[in-house]
Amino acid sequence: MKKPFIFINSAMTVDGKISTLERRQVRISSQKDMDMVDKLRAGSDAVLVGMNTLLTDDPKLTVKSGKLREERLEKGLSENPMKVAVGRIDSVNLDSEFLNYGNAEKIFFASRDSDTLKIDELGDMADVYVSVDDEIDPCFIAKTLHGLGVRRLMIEGGAETNYRFLKAGLVDEIYVTVAPRIFGGRDAPTLVDGAGFMEGQALKLKLLSMNRKGDELLLKYRVSKR
Amino acid sequence: MKKPFIFINSAMTVDGKISTLERRQVRISSQKDMDMVDKLRAGSDAVLVGMNTLLTDDPKLTVKSGKLREERLEKGLSENPMKVAVGRIDSVNLDSEFLNYGNAEKIFFASRDSDTLKIDELGDMADVYVSVDDEIDPCFIAKTLHGLGVRRLMIEGGAETNYRFLKAGLVDEIYVTVAPRIFGGRDAPTLVDGAGFMEGQALKLKLLSMNRKGDELLLKYRVSKR
Repeated sequence: MKKPFIFINSAMTVDGKISTLERRQVRISSQKDMDMVDKLRAGSDAVLVGMNTLLTDDPKLTVKSGKLREERLEKGLSENPMKVAVGRIDSVNLDSEFLNYGNAEKIFFASRDSDTLKIDELGDMADVYVSVDDEIDPCFIAKTLHGLGVRRLMIEGGAETNYRFLKAGLVDEIYVTVAPRIFGGRDAPTLVDGAGFMEGQALKLKLLSMNRKGDELLLKYRVSKR
Repeated sequence: MKKPFIFINSAMTVDGKISTLERRQVRISSQKDMDMVDKLRAGSDAVLVGMNTLLTDDPKLTVKSGKLREERLEKGLSENPMKVAVGRIDSVNLDSEFLNYGNAEKIFFASRDSDTLKIDELGDMADVYVSVDDEIDPCFIAKTLHGLGVRRLMIEGGAETNYRFLKAGLVDEIYVTVAPRIFGGRDAPTLVDGAGFMEGQALKLKLLSMNRKGDELLLKYRVSKR
């Protein structure tokens, strides 16, 4: 199957949390790390988030740095990478930053049970692919995006989306910034949630690099093929 | 309040998990890491676990290396650090490794609702402190252990126990080995569970050192005082 190079990028606490029990958007890492995220976005053809993240955080998903956006344009690329959201689209706000902020192509992979009226509404502002299966197949997403010219796909969470793409064996690398904090909480979201892997099925990684910036760590892992 | 120096030591996956969704004892880190854990134990006056860990893992909690045990004896210490378990003791097996393996003093901090018959039974094999409060106060544990001569206390989990001691502000340092694996699972235990901290209450850490061994990372943090 032809697919883009896919990597997950996330900041987390030392105890693996990507938010507190409140499950709101939390600034976890430093400005330096945010600049690094901006570079990763600028180097990607598409940036993908799950519906929980879209509805909770209302992320812009654009390249913040004017210089990086200019560099993209000079290379003949679009100003921003394609924005991709996955899930049941019923609650997507037509005024959301995802849909309105910045100059970027927008794509939804909507679950089959999504409201048809909403599909029409969003269809005026974005491309909407509706899943034929009950669950949206991450392989379908990867294949479709590759067909649209995406060669480098950045996944920006959340915990359930990260799990689904990892479980499908589609993720090549994981970049994680470990912030010097502890959130705790058995119900707080972690880097990878979902149902989870049984012991024999747990994923193996290879540590590609580590980089210390003050009390923060940037770790890069390659996901081992099973 | 007089208390021992308290540190948490744990291995976890890159996504912060200390076991899979199955919640059984899982060997997460390498033999090298296990040797390091053994040294940390040998350098401690007491090793503490919560009741979930005691019942699920039935840990020996002794120093594995004969050489390290000898060194303790030469220093006039007991062969092994004191073993400490915390929680409702009703299900503790009288044949457990905790109670029977190795030469070590054993202490229980039992919750108030613990079975009185069991308190008597365990009392023949260990010292049993019964809590006067509904919840066992970690400060009472720290103070009592200090009174018994414990100057260095190692907490070996699990997720709920780590949270309680962190929440009480008793933990000085956290040593975590990050193994190159992903377990995933919204119900899998993480390094710190419990109710969790609200955003404003999240703990801040200081990275003391990092050490790469192959694909494994050993991180040492100091917990900032609030």
